[in-house]
Amino acid sequence: MNARPVEAAVLIVGNEILSGRTQDLNLAWLATRLGEHGIRVTVARVVRDEQPAIVDAVRDLAASHDYVFTTGGIGPTHDDITPGSVAAAFGRPLVRHAAAVEKLATYYRGRGDALNAARLRMAEAAEGAELIWSPGAGIAFRVENVFVLAGIPRVMQAQFNTLAPTLRRGAVVLSRSVDCALAEGNFAEGLGLIQEAFPAVEIGSYPYDRNGEYAARIVLRSADNDALERALSRVTALMEYLGGSPKLE
Amino acid sequence: MNARPVEAAVLIVGNEILSGRTQDLNLAWLATRLGEHGIRVTVARVVRDEQPAIVDAVRDLAASHDYVFTTGGIGPTHDDITPGSVAAAFGRPLVRHAAAVEKLATYYRGRGDALNAARLRMAEAAEGAELIWSPGAGIAFRVENVFVLAGIPRVMQAQFNTLAPTLRRGAVVLSRSVDCALAEGNFAEGLGLIQEAFPAVEIGSYPYDRNGEYAARIVLRSADNDALERALSRVTALMEYLGGSPKLE
Repeated sequence: MNARPVEAAVLIVGNEILSGRTQDLNLAWLATRLGEHGIRVTVARVVRDEQPAIVDAVRDLAASHDYVFTTGGIGPTHDDITPGSVAAAFGRPLVRHAAAVEKLATYYRGRGDALNAARLRMAEAAEGAELIWSPGAGIAFRVENVFVLAGIPRVMQAQFNTLAPTLRRGAVVLSRSVDCALAEGNFAEGLGLIQEAFPAVEIGSYPYDRNGEYAARIVLRSADNDALERALSRVTALMEYLGGSPKLE
Repeated sequence: MNARPVEAAVLIVGNEILSGRTQDLNLAWLATRLGEHGIRVTVARVVRDEQPAIVDAVRDLAASHDYVFTTGGIGPTHDDITPGSVAAAFGRPLVRHAAAVEKLATYYRGRGDALNAARLRMAEAAEGAELIWSPGAGIAFRVENVFVLAGIPRVMQAQFNTLAPTLRRGAVVLSRSVDCALAEGNFAEGLGLIQEAFPAVEIGSYPYDRNGEYAARIVLRSADNDALERALSRVTALMEYLGGSPKLE
């Protein structure tokens, strides 16, 4: 447990996300897993496969967060430029790492495939970067407080599972939620008063359409379990009072 | 058609996206629709429901893009702070707009619901903002080059459909793709040579796992249809040559 919360940023690299062709799934997965470690994702960015955009984002985010997690752009093709861009962001040369070459050599030998020039690019990272070991051909690196991970969810997840035990943990934020059949405008004033009474609890209201009827989910988040439960019972009582049939989730 | 491409940024506001609880769907939808208008999304950011974070992002993105589209944080509850933050970003006061009050009054009268103080907050936006009319209670605004839209996909989509005809159009980027049963490392060198030969075509390679076998989708994008088709036939020939059973999609 740390007094100061541990904060992270996620940087998603890839034209395919910004064209709308591919639906990103990595942010939600990383945010959930980091939350379990008491690490709060405070911002995410999606940038194109262009070195200046990646460099600027890495510099900005690394300076203002405990950790940065990048996803995408670490393969063998010409559009995979994340490792070189992260190296440039820290003013370090891009070098070939022997441990990574060895891992790739073993992997491709096992498949009867060639470790050619394109694949050797995957062994390149900033000078002084630390290899993150994971099954398969994927090579992830840590450079200072930046973790450079794959874009393919399955590969990225294996890489995260390898590095997770090395992360500094913060206070885990607990979460409770209650669902109700009310329009937000009918409980907004009361909910605002509860939020004022419980500054240690973050209360969010997320309206949605339930078969054409108004509905909303109220999410309460706090590292203080006692405050969380007291705020939750106040919210539930407000929903009961307004006839909103609250359901704890 | 414009010589200069029209560029947009998407700003997603919401703690629920950054906690991993809610999967964002708005970026992919907006990017696809904007692409159809020849408007390229060059960056996206996700920020928390906190005024300084929203203000900084709006200032940054509005200064460097033709358009910014924000989603989320325009409802009646205490955590809906996007309109006030956008006003602050432009140094304008937040004022109640008569046209928005009238729309809300008509809407809630029709439902037999009260237009209370919480709901009247939805009529507030930067001084000089332009109301974007759409069905339902949702109130979207345009402030300079920033469109302030809802977070609920269905509502956001209706708002976008209203504003879309007002957007400046760029050259529509055409896209073709080909799927193959190859590991990226086996075609990376050849694909890089094709990319060099066709600088007007953006070639992306997206590997994936097809029932435990390597596969990749190559996406070619260009505003120049002739270059696109020639590059595509080169890529297809490369895949044939390597025994990758290319399939046009």
